[in-house]
Amino acid sequence: MSRRTLAAVNALDRSGFVAAFGGVYEHSPWVAERAFAARPFVGVTVLAAAMAATVAAAGEAEQLALLRAHPDLAGRAALAGELTAASTAEQARAGLDRLTPAEMERFRGANDAYVKRFGFPFIQAVKHWGKAHVLVAFEYRLLNRREQEMRTALDEVDKIAFMRLLDLVQPAATGRLTTHVLDTARGQPASGVPLALYRIDPQGGRTEVKRARTNGDGRLDAPALAGAEMEAGRYELVFEAGEYFLANGLPTAAPAFLDRVPIQFAIANPEGHYHVPLLLSPWSFSTYRGS
Amino acid sequence: MSRRTLAAVNALDRSGFVAAFGGVYEHSPWVAERAFAARPFVGVTVLAAAMAATVAAAGEAEQLALLRAHPDLAGRAALAGELTAASTAEQARAGLDRLTPAEMERFRGANDAYVKRFGFPFIQAVKHWGKAHVLVAFEYRLLNRREQEMRTALDEVDKIAFMRLLDLVQPAATGRLTTHVLDTARGQPASGVPLALYRIDPQGGRTEVKRARTNGDGRLDAPALAGAEMEAGRYELVFEAGEYFLANGLPTAAPAFLDRVPIQFAIANPEGHYHVPLLLSPWSFSTYRGS
Amino acid sequence: MSRRTLAAVNALDRSGFVAAFGGVYEHSPWVAERAFAARPFVGVTVLAAAMAATVAAAGEAEQLALLRAHPDLAGRAALAGELTAASTAEQARAGLDRLTPAEMERFRGANDAYVKRFGFPFIQAVKHWGKAHVLVAFEYRLLNRREQEMRTALDEVDKIAFMRLLDLVQPAATGRLTTHVLDTARGQPASGVPLALYRIDPQGGRTEVKRARTNGDGRLDAPALAGAEMEAGRYELVFEAGEYFLANGLPTAAPAFLDRVPIQFAIANPEGHYHVPLLLSPWSFSTYRGS
Amino acid sequence: MSRRTLAAVNALDRSGFVAAFGGVYEHSPWVAERAFAARPFVGVTVLAAAMAATVAAAGEAEQLALLRAHPDLAGRAALAGELTAASTAEQARAGLDRLTPAEMERFRGANDAYVKRFGFPFIQAVKHWGKAHVLVAFEYRLLNRREQEMRTALDEVDKIAFMRLLDLVQPAATGRLTTHVLDTARGQPASGVPLALYRIDPQGGRTEVKRARTNGDGRLDAPALAGAEMEAGRYELVFEAGEYFLANGLPTAAPAFLDRVPIQFAIANPEGHYHVPLLLSPWSFSTYRGS
Repeated sequence: MSRRTLAAVNALDRSGFVAAFGGVYEHSPWVAERAFAARPFVGVTVLAAAMAATVAAAGEAEQLALLRAHPDLAGRAALAGELTAASTAEQARAGLDRLTPAEMERFRGANDAYVKRFGFPFIQAVKHWGKAHVLVAFEYRLLNRREQEMRTALDEVDKIAFMRLLDLVQPAATGRLTTHVLDTARGQPASGVPLALYRIDPQGGRTEVKRARTNGDGRLDAPALAGAEMEAGRYELVFEAGEYFLANGLPTAAPAFLDRVPIQFAIANPEGHYHVPLLLSPWSFSTYRGS
Repeated sequence: MSRRTLAAVNALDRSGFVAAFGGVYEHSPWVAERAFAARPFVGVTVLAAAMAATVAAAGEAEQLALLRAHPDLAGRAALAGELTAASTAEQARAGLDRLTPAEMERFRGANDAYVKRFGFPFIQAVKHWGKAHVLVAFEYRLLNRREQEMRTALDEVDKIAFMRLLDLVQPAATGRLTTHVLDTARGQPASGVPLALYRIDPQGGRTEVKRARTNGDGRLDAPALAGAEMEAGRYELVFEAGEYFLANGLPTAAPAFLDRVPIQFAIANPEGHYHVPLLLSPWSFSTYRGS
Repeated sequence: MSRRTLAAVNALDRSGFVAAFGGVYEHSPWVAERAFAARPFVGVTVLAAAMAATVAAAGEAEQLALLRAHPDLAGRAALAGELTAASTAEQARAGLDRLTPAEMERFRGANDAYVKRFGFPFIQAVKHWGKAHVLVAFEYRLLNRREQEMRTALDEVDKIAFMRLLDLVQPAATGRLTTHVLDTARGQPASGVPLALYRIDPQGGRTEVKRARTNGDGRLDAPALAGAEMEAGRYELVFEAGEYFLANGLPTAAPAFLDRVPIQFAIANPEGHYHVPLLLSPWSFSTYRGS
Repeated sequence: MSRRTLAAVNALDRSGFVAAFGGVYEHSPWVAERAFAARPFVGVTVLAAAMAATVAAAGEAEQLALLRAHPDLAGRAALAGELTAASTAEQARAGLDRLTPAEMERFRGANDAYVKRFGFPFIQAVKHWGKAHVLVAFEYRLLNRREQEMRTALDEVDKIAFMRLLDLVQPAATGRLTTHVLDTARGQPASGVPLALYRIDPQGGRTEVKRARTNGDGRLDAPALAGAEMEAGRYELVFEAGEYFLANGLPTAAPAFLDRVPIQFAIANPEGHYHVPLLLSPWSFSTYRGS
């Protein structure tokens, strides 16, 4: 899909802006209308933040109307073909358009209990989850107090909006993915570690994006991803730890306890810095979102 | 392949024992002959230890003869079809029978340099490594001092022997694989985490072995593998962390930074206890060989 | 202080129970009155849970009255000597009775802003914090939404109640403190590690409670603390990692990067199991509340 | 003590150089004599490396003579007052001049066994260890093979030499100590964490060196130590984690499981970069030597 540049977004007049982004918040063009005042936007992150702040500043009545403008997940609107195009695609990504009759029943029961308890439909950013995930979230959130659940629902609405914006606007080139391998058995950077980066598609398939080796400081000479290469989605970094151990005489068993070390993670915001380091010994490893 | 039981091994007389295990140390039946005295053996681990202790107690002349009894890796003996059956299979597993002429040249050069420097051929337990691994090990070990390299080579010989024994004898049922998931964001066991265990075959394919969910203490009600299920080899535990986060209301991004967490590891000794825990938060995880 | 046994608590009639525990929730004997029905109590944990459930089940009006029954922290009631004995002692432990005039002014300003915003005084379980902690908590919580802040305040009231109960009733002997040292450089339990356990008193002084060495599995033969030895409070485990490294030939720098490894932690619930493991290499360590 | 600058060292002629550094390797001025050729030296690290390379390049006979030039630890030479001044001070730092008769007996027995087995005295960089450490190292190393033990002994000699050089020459200003606090519960840098750095003297006393707070990236605006502030020795970083949790609304128990987090570590090489990060949640933390 061809996405607008940020420059093009900032050049829109009010009606053009609302035409472009009025559907980012489901059936609620008022969010785009009010957020327009905050332009220019240097990134999708700030555009999304302006829209989220608009919702946060609205009164409870408007927030409730916003929540109620959402369809039931896997619900009657979907069956009747009454969803927005965006909702249809998102629900399909989560497999909610391919439920068995029994699953459909279970969703409908949960939906009804939820609406009865809270007065608005269950909303979740389902695009990257499967139906099992949606059901466990249902169960957890049904036990929330109402005020808390309203906050949770609005947070999910903001997440959905952010993902929709990423489909409409090309992110600023501020993002990057970096890594760093530390040898915790020897207390020094792990240099010469071969690694590969894969993109994992929604069906679980993977595409190789890059191959590299860590340098003398245990880092890559350039970010694993940067600028336009940064796309939201799921990735896997695979570190060839076994080769590193052999190349440095670190004792291992046969076969080595650790050889190929895969780390799966997601980039939610392609304008952000994702640092995914590996602390490694022949018998242990850790990773975390660093900075 | 049908493997002897330990009871059957312990019932062998000396000549039967040597016939069975005389080839475990390459062209060196004296190792089996002397280790016979240490019977009965309650496990492959102690049988292997008895044979390794025999080698360690032998003088330097016998150790050197043992090392020299090994073929060059990917070397002339392989080309001439003069390897033992075990060596042929092991080298094939590492892809050393499918080298390009350029790779063959590189191995031969390394082999020659190694033999010239140390007076015995390069030996490595290659079965679970690929040719890239063998080459980096070559480069590292060429820089060792001789005495140290002789130790390293004998260690590799012991590893090869252990793997050969596992092909000949059924291990004692003492081994088990366990796990434990701790939620480090909330300081409590992570209960209800779905997980799957896969066996990874040498070509990288995977076979599902088990599915389970962690109990209230973050553990499995029974070992993931126990007794006869324990086979040496490479495995992957996949933890459905994302589902756990949703089921417990832990905030995540969309998509969640961590969702499916795979941990690849190997069981080298099927008679041992492998504890492979997961310390998990929505933004970090660690694993290690525990106890 | 002499504390009642659980048997003695369970033998109390209603009026005796209310006389004993009516002050656990500040000026709110109704909590004890209603929780009495849940006896017998097998531990302080369940007694506290029964009282907390009583508060949670009360309506918002009673909850608000409970919050409003609390004094201002470091406020006018303290100056006028009108606090309950328990509040006076708790505030003194946090140093709130020794504020400079400038600090007093800062607290009073924060108090006034807080009461104006939320309609009830700022409440925090201050006994184990200092005044710096109380001020930062003030600043954070002033930004909460009211419903959320009311939940936070009620949580703090429950924490205060639990600590007051521990002063009145001897806990059940179900608690224990355990540890486990894993050598992540070698992938095995760290045995023979000398360690000492200290109790840290509120002034920061420390008293040695126990000395021990890890056994072959990297654990202690008996819990570091168990039963009546378990007291809520702050502790320090000191592991003599340097001695372990030397005793096992693990290479270190001179001086070693890690030698003495102190881990400070608190036991909040003496009836619980606190597992405080150490994952250790010569260049790294981790700890966490395990199970 | 007044130390030479590197410029002054590089201005020395051969005899001045040998006069200055001839004692760095015990009774072995030939090491300084030969290392002189490698000048100029941009740091103590390279000066020490040049001397260590000289020893490594010497034949086994000279290496053995070097080892034999060392006194017995806590041995007869010490009793007779025949040690070099450097050895006397180093042994006193480890408490080896204050042994009880029983300890003296134990050391003497270990010394005698060691010399009998290896043909040279037990050598260890004891300055930062206590007598318990020295005894466990004795026990471990007595089981080494001779060639391996000779390597270990020479490594210890190099460590002693490096520490002696640090007493004689002012290091280059290339060193620094940095830290970084990551919040693994929230997946972001931990900003505003108060921390203090202490220097720990050999008697265990501590002197505050610096106080600071982490910035928005979880780091300090400037290194905790840099240039001339870097001194070899033992340090403690104390992170006020509890205050951070309160300031950010992270839920904790009362008292909090983690409040004050001390990390003890040593700087062996003041010309190096020591990165000592903290990965922190309310229920877990990790540290390691990073880069």
